[in-house]
Amino acid sequence: MEAERTLRQDELTDLGEVAAQLRVDAIRCSTRAGSGHPTSSLSAADLLAVLISRHLRYNWSDPRDRANDHLIFSKGHASPLLYAVFKAVGAISDQELVDTYRQYGSRLQGHPTPVLPWVDVATGSLGQGLPVGVGIALAGRYLDRLPFHVWALCGDSEMAEGSIWEALDKAGHYGLHNLTAIVDVNRFGQRGPTELEWDLDTYRRRVEAFGCQALVVDGHDLAEIDEALGRARQATGPTVVLARTLKGKGVPEVENKPGWHGKPLKPELAERAVADLGGVRRIRVTTPRPEPAPPAAAPESRPPTLPRYDKGAKVATRNAYGDALRALGSRPEVVALDGEVSDSTRADRFGEAYPERFFELFISEQQLVAAAVGLQVRGYRPFAATFAAFLSRAYDFIRMAAISRADIALAGSHAGVEVGADGPSQMGLEDLAALRAVSGSTVVYPSDAVSCAALVAQLVDRRGVTYLRTTRGGYPVLYDNDESFPIGGSKVLREGDDIALIGAGVTVHNCLAAADELAREGINARVVDLYSVKPVDADGLRDAVRACGGRLLVVEDHYPEGGLGSAVLESLADLAEPVRVTHLAVRGLPTSGTPTQLMAQAGIGVGDIVSAARAAEPPRR
Amino acid sequence: MEAERTLRQDELTDLGEVAAQLRVDAIRCSTRAGSGHPTSSLSAADLLAVLISRHLRYNWSDPRDRANDHLIFSKGHASPLLYAVFKAVGAISDQELVDTYRQYGSRLQGHPTPVLPWVDVATGSLGQGLPVGVGIALAGRYLDRLPFHVWALCGDSEMAEGSIWEALDKAGHYGLHNLTAIVDVNRFGQRGPTELEWDLDTYRRRVEAFGCQALVVDGHDLAEIDEALGRARQATGPTVVLARTLKGKGVPEVENKPGWHGKPLKPELAERAVADLGGVRRIRVTTPRPEPAPPAAAPESRPPTLPRYDKGAKVATRNAYGDALRALGSRPEVVALDGEVSDSTRADRFGEAYPERFFELFISEQQLVAAAVGLQVRGYRPFAATFAAFLSRAYDFIRMAAISRADIALAGSHAGVEVGADGPSQMGLEDLAALRAVSGSTVVYPSDAVSCAALVAQLVDRRGVTYLRTTRGGYPVLYDNDESFPIGGSKVLREGDDIALIGAGVTVHNCLAAADELAREGINARVVDLYSVKPVDADGLRDAVRACGGRLLVVEDHYPEGGLGSAVLESLADLAEPVRVTHLAVRGLPTSGTPTQLMAQAGIGVGDIVSAARAAEPPRR
Repeated sequence: MEAERTLRQDELTDLGEVAAQLRVDAIRCSTRAGSGHPTSSLSAADLLAVLISRHLRYNWSDPRDRANDHLIFSKGHASPLLYAVFKAVGAISDQELVDTYRQYGSRLQGHPTPVLPWVDVATGSLGQGLPVGVGIALAGRYLDRLPFHVWALCGDSEMAEGSIWEALDKAGHYGLHNLTAIVDVNRFGQRGPTELEWDLDTYRRRVEAFGCQALVVDGHDLAEIDEALGRARQATGPTVVLARTLKGKGVPEVENKPGWHGKPLKPELAERAVADLGGVRRIRVTTPRPEPAPPAAAPESRPPTLPRYDKGAKVATRNAYGDALRALGSRPEVVALDGEVSDSTRADRFGEAYPERFFELFISEQQLVAAAVGLQVRGYRPFAATFAAFLSRAYDFIRMAAISRADIALAGSHAGVEVGADGPSQMGLEDLAALRAVSGSTVVYPSDAVSCAALVAQLVDRRGVTYLRTTRGGYPVLYDNDESFPIGGSKVLREGDDIALIGAGVTVHNCLAAADELAREGINARVVDLYSVKPVDADGLRDAVRACGGRLLVVEDHYPEGGLGSAVLESLADLAEPVRVTHLAVRGLPTSGTPTQLMAQAGIGVGDIVSAARAAEPPRR
Repeated sequence: MEAERTLRQDELTDLGEVAAQLRVDAIRCSTRAGSGHPTSSLSAADLLAVLISRHLRYNWSDPRDRANDHLIFSKGHASPLLYAVFKAVGAISDQELVDTYRQYGSRLQGHPTPVLPWVDVATGSLGQGLPVGVGIALAGRYLDRLPFHVWALCGDSEMAEGSIWEALDKAGHYGLHNLTAIVDVNRFGQRGPTELEWDLDTYRRRVEAFGCQALVVDGHDLAEIDEALGRARQATGPTVVLARTLKGKGVPEVENKPGWHGKPLKPELAERAVADLGGVRRIRVTTPRPEPAPPAAAPESRPPTLPRYDKGAKVATRNAYGDALRALGSRPEVVALDGEVSDSTRADRFGEAYPERFFELFISEQQLVAAAVGLQVRGYRPFAATFAAFLSRAYDFIRMAAISRADIALAGSHAGVEVGADGPSQMGLEDLAALRAVSGSTVVYPSDAVSCAALVAQLVDRRGVTYLRTTRGGYPVLYDNDESFPIGGSKVLREGDDIALIGAGVTVHNCLAAADELAREGINARVVDLYSVKPVDADGLRDAVRACGGRLLVVEDHYPEGGLGSAVLESLADLAEPVRVTHLAVRGLPTSGTPTQLMAQAGIGVGDIVSAARAAEPPRR
């Protein structure tokens, strides 16, 4: 790209000074910490100097200003550069930067997290910042309708992640003119050259084929950078600035040399480098201020009128999800996303009622979750749905969402062997384990339509990553419409003192049928609907232990590890009273068949519960 | 593409008959089953008719023939078509096809799995078959050096998955001329039009930018298809055949109409369609036979000489992984893969010794695992490594590997808060839960270099998905080099009868230090190294219960759900004797700091163990 040299020489000199300060500070903080990625910061210092001085519109004194641009370091390991930026704009002090980077108790962690008010999301797992940026840009273009711009700094190594291409594809599809990815092509990964090194032309062709404008620049030519960023902001579609850079730029001993990834400069080298770069500076960069945003439109928010169901009617919980989500649409902050299966997850019921707040992500589950994370950055309450099995595709994104302290609701349909003829590839059988293990998560798994709707209504105000597991088939409505289902609670559906049958979702129905059969044999089984898998109702479980002399039977449509059984056992681990738990779960690899056949094959059917309850012995005392 | 019309009219007629049979049979079996995806099969019937009649080289009587091509239905939902192919070539009977498809107990499941000897891997989670094909093609080109070809039938919807672009990128990078993807562009997904519909030109530009030859054809023109498949086999790089097709082709009532995804034709419609297509046929297709493969070279296989370590020396288990893997290189079937972090995982130690058996997948963890699955299809024993945290990126692939009954070893380094200053994005803290929940998996987590090397040596012969968790930092070698560490076992490092301290990996060292401190207070703690997390040593744990009066303390560098604590609790759930378990795990979101600081912050440090052991009460009897 041929740059129009519009910057005056004094402006270029000033920008060079800013870039030098960023380099110096990135070196200083990482050398002091004894770890970090200075060379990955040095390559992008010129890009950031121009961005923050002339293009990023940001009100640093109010990071919650709705008009602010968004700056995401998708290459989160370049945190020394990001924090040097924060010093340059006056958001943090030089002392905080140099003395606390990567130290215990500091908010300047090894990779950025939203502990810092200017950081939208945690990064550090590559290929995630840009996809989240797509979600923020979706909000800007389609919901907020504000002129803020999303700038994502990417590394060249992360261009090998498929999620980057999911992101650019969706950016193109949705015409996100308010999104710019700046790729720091320094051609070195962690352990050697990247796959494409400096083959900028291949990057360009890929980017263009995925529907984005590509601007190739010398990432150390301040005027070229300025021209490109200006064009990016004015573009009619998404832009990718492909910047050819040198890793370690500005420090001859490490510049453009392999073997320097993730290594701080030794103190004497750092000292020399800082001196060669002109020493420590205290330049205060004045970032352009955003135009004040018009006052947020406050569309009417009405309390949702939840769907009501007839007791005994057979209704799939996935249907109740769709119904309840549509009802929640009365709150304008609620948005829904789906991965091209909304007619199965029933998210389409929301989409039909609120097309302007429904986002189709097609079959790209990583981008599905990333978009949800981005939307909640802008204050929306996203519900993202696909098959429970396919949320596993986005597990790294869910993990990172938790580190981002993102408030997102995930809905996984088609749980367990209950799926039937489609076979194991379509069955969510690890999802409870995986989602329970996410930091701060909430996991609910309703057995009927009434409880499902009640739980969906609570997820909208729940913090953190929440997960709703729904069932494919229709099962009888068990509860009155006015029943309440607090998260962290459980329901005793039948009283009994011989053994407690504990299920969730579809197995609650099996437990009820088994209790009927056991009653005919004179065995009084208590039936517990453990709809709240995390947090689990420890008090309710202890009541069951006491009521039933320590005899529990847990049955779940999930593999044996980490699911409902583990939730029960973990909550009772430190209980003084003796407990003995029989655990029925899916122990082999399922096949195709009817739900009833497959539940029997897995040993979680009605007959299995009856047999196991008969055989269960009390704990020894 | 302009086809050279080399096929004679009678050949075209015959191919048309084969295609009609495939259509008829796909309709019949799905209608009989009452579920399945006939329209997604009809669109690709012409492609498959030409492929199996003229290009696929396959010895159906010996699916293990090393010379066979590989046929993968990446769009696994088109199983009616795949099974119709199996009938056409005589691999299964018409009766099995029509009477058993999707029935309980049948090997013709809703989506293909390797229960069928002609199926290499399970598909049904979109975007996975092609990446696995990349692994098979890597084996063919670089290891087997045989002229077999890998044919992957893809749907157009799955082109939205980032994993497809990871696969094409690697196919181009590794010059996989022996790989052809055939994309059935029928422009309808599950719930409506695909993102790109029939924009074949955009597909073409994407494919070419990712380093593959693109051939655009009319997917219902038999001569064009034939020409393209012939060119694909002769190509010098990977090929993607982009076939414009009609969903439901051949049945006017459903052809090219939305709303027919995943819906069988009603019996009367099916009957009419079959009649219109010329009725049921019994054509037996003679697939071209592969050239006999030369006898497999039998490179010398020597028993590995495992590394030895000095007791007390501080050695990181990730180093022992690299050392042991290099030692295992003496067995020629062992191959290693890494996701651009081999200098951290230490997989580079294998790569340096055996560069021809080391595959760099760059930062694409989905493709990393898929390539491992593909390599094991060809009989290799792959070890795939990255950070434990980043294996979460490939969780859907790991899940599907289990359904494929694939034998792969995964190594995740940088487990837990022990990672230190890099912060939570780099810490594997959900991995034990996630990997334990995989069907048939093995999970090991050694505390020292000796046990790590011994476990790596066992994984090479272990069936299923195996997972080794390693630690970043160096800790003292605890064991003599001749000690054995059977999978499913545990080690009592210190005898004691007041309480059992149970750890794995880094927490074993904390338990030992805590036991020292407790001993000074007169508390005799037993210390158990539970290096085998799945299967877990139930007998050893019961011994600990009995020895310590039911007082156990489990401490793990992992979130509290689904990990080591759950493994212990699950194994003791049905124990008659009372047990009381104190469980120390990482309960909050970690930050940056030193390993010692972060373990203390998480409550899993030495002091935490001492305090908790002091406070632990016995179960009530």
